Amino acid sequence: MIQPPPTPRALAFPFTLVRPELEKVEHAIMEQAKAFDPAVEGYVAYVCKSSGKRIRPALALLAGGATGGVTEEHRRLAVILEMVHIASLVHDDIMDGADIRRGLPTAAAKWGNSLSVLLGDSLFAYALELATEFDDTNVCRAIARASRDVCCGEIFQTQRRFDLNLSVADYQRMIEMKTAALFAAATELGAVLNRQNSGVVSALKSYGVKLGTAYQIYDDCLDLVGDEKQVGKTLGTDLAKGKLTLPMLYLLQSATDGQKTKLSRMLLKGEPMDTSILAGIADYVGSVERAVATAKQLLDDAGAELVCLAESPHVRALREITGYLHGLLEKCRAVA
Amino acid sequence: MIQPPPTPRALAFPFTLVRPELEKVEHAIMEQAKAFDPAVEGYVAYVCKSSGKRIRPALALLAGGATGGVTEEHRRLAVILEMVHIASLVHDDIMDGADIRRGLPTAAAKWGNSLSVLLGDSLFAYALELATEFDDTNVCRAIARASRDVCCGEIFQTQRRFDLNLSVADYQRMIEMKTAALFAAATELGAVLNRQNSGVVSALKSYGVKLGTAYQIYDDCLDLVGDEKQVGKTLGTDLAKGKLTLPMLYLLQSATDGQKTKLSRMLLKGEPMDTSILAGIADYVGSVERAVATAKQLLDDAGAELVCLAESPHVRALREITGYLHGLLEKCRAVA
Repeated sequence: MIQPPPTPRALAFPFTLVRPELEKVEHAIMEQAKAFDPAVEGYVAYVCKSSGKRIRPALALLAGGATGGVTEEHRRLAVILEMVHIASLVHDDIMDGADIRRGLPTAAAKWGNSLSVLLGDSLFAYALELATEFDDTNVCRAIARASRDVCCGEIFQTQRRFDLNLSVADYQRMIEMKTAALFAAATELGAVLNRQNSGVVSALKSYGVKLGTAYQIYDDCLDLVGDEKQVGKTLGTDLAKGKLTLPMLYLLQSATDGQKTKLSRMLLKGEPMDTSILAGIADYVGSVERAVATAKQLLDDAGAELVCLAESPHVRALREITGYLHGLLEKCRAVA
Repeated sequence: MIQPPPTPRALAFPFTLVRPELEKVEHAIMEQAKAFDPAVEGYVAYVCKSSGKRIRPALALLAGGATGGVTEEHRRLAVILEMVHIASLVHDDIMDGADIRRGLPTAAAKWGNSLSVLLGDSLFAYALELATEFDDTNVCRAIARASRDVCCGEIFQTQRRFDLNLSVADYQRMIEMKTAALFAAATELGAVLNRQNSGVVSALKSYGVKLGTAYQIYDDCLDLVGDEKQVGKTLGTDLAKGKLTLPMLYLLQSATDGQKTKLSRMLLKGEPMDTSILAGIADYVGSVERAVATAKQLLDDAGAELVCLAESPHVRALREITGYLHGLLEKCRAVA
């Protein structure tokens, strides 16, 4: 049964400072559909409307504001990165066999996998077409590179499903590609568009990598120990699909040989009951806590990257995002 | 059962003039795999090795040769267009549920749909990343645009499957996007890279559109009336998938109301026996012949576009390609 869309979580993120700019970006995203052939426009409009918290656009705008001001180019960057993200979600939903995203039927559920493969492709191609409009070709190149990282990170994850030998370093590399790459492109290019020096550019890139990584760890913890009603989406799907996330990797690290045998049996079976038992164990022995601590450390490190920027409302807003995620992580721990 | 790969049909195309250049391109395509994360490299190498007649690279090189000479930039263009094409084939094979392409298992058959969706995405993102290296951003933009056309053309086709009201004009628009867009990008950009005037650029683009359209009509006729053993791939798949191609549209056009009812019944059922009956009827009443004639006219028009170019071996080779396709179309007629 189709649920009405939940109140966008975006409202909870501390994006107030760039809210008017974000609304322009939102409008521009909706406008993009019109650039497509009439046969395709409706599909594009649907997926653009129904997905996302617009974190990447907000980061692009805030990084712009923090380095001299938000320009038309920052809004374009915001639109492009969100379209790449939407394209990746359309394809994710095919792979995950997901029927519902944010309370609405996914493209795959509505129109089938074939159309969704192509729809994601078209969105993606169009985003990169828009990216060629920047005067500085380095911007377009960085966007294409980040897009490739997203896909390669997903391949990496697909490939290592049910692989109990996945190391924490591998996991980190995977989520840096899969999630942090677009966060980092938003913050890095926000500074590049304002022609900042390499110190500032690299600090903002690093902020994006760390924030994105922490955000993915949070999402992974939530999938394990979150409350479905509060979160508003199906949880526990990672384990069922064999995706080994940080709390589970920490659990495997801390297990004795005998415990490892038990974990392997449960992880490789992946039945719903075992999933909640595994989550319970990970919580009980402190693996969730440890993953939360890792993410919180990353958030502190992300905040520290901002010291080289002159203090401003936008810099404070970037810092507040790390504070907001700290709060979300605390709740994961509280549930735990 | 897996068949050994057939002798590449590429050898039959009159590409002799650019054979040494094509070999360099082939080598460069293989080298691209190394730019990927080690986790992904093997997949990329596999699909790059196992697909294609390299028509688009050959066109890019010949267009370069016909407008001042083949440069390093033409070889890069050739590599990029072929990678976009390979990405689209990887996704096509998912949608068509194809197990074998050119005698080898498809990526979808070997590693599943999820990985293949991502693999196509990565190849595509990487191709556009390479495209940002051109000094002229118009080149990158045109490649992104052509890539989007390929996807939108496919969406269009997917959407209009089993739609007996598809017009010939719609079909033409569809194949112009799906197939001719990359042919046209190859020939147009081949001239753009040699800084040719807009007359030459537009003539070569038009040559590419017409050649690509004719090629697709040939492929569509072949699917209907070709000999599987000679062609070396499964035929009759278009009708089974509800793809209405030109011979079938001509058949519908020429049918009386009573005949239309019979055709609709067979087209919408799409069982193997009906497929060969439909092909037989289309052949018998001259619809295949008419499609062949349409394609042959397009080839003549493509050839005529070349008159504004100074005569040279490369221009002759471009003309020979139309002659070669004329010959292939004759065979379709001969079978018919």
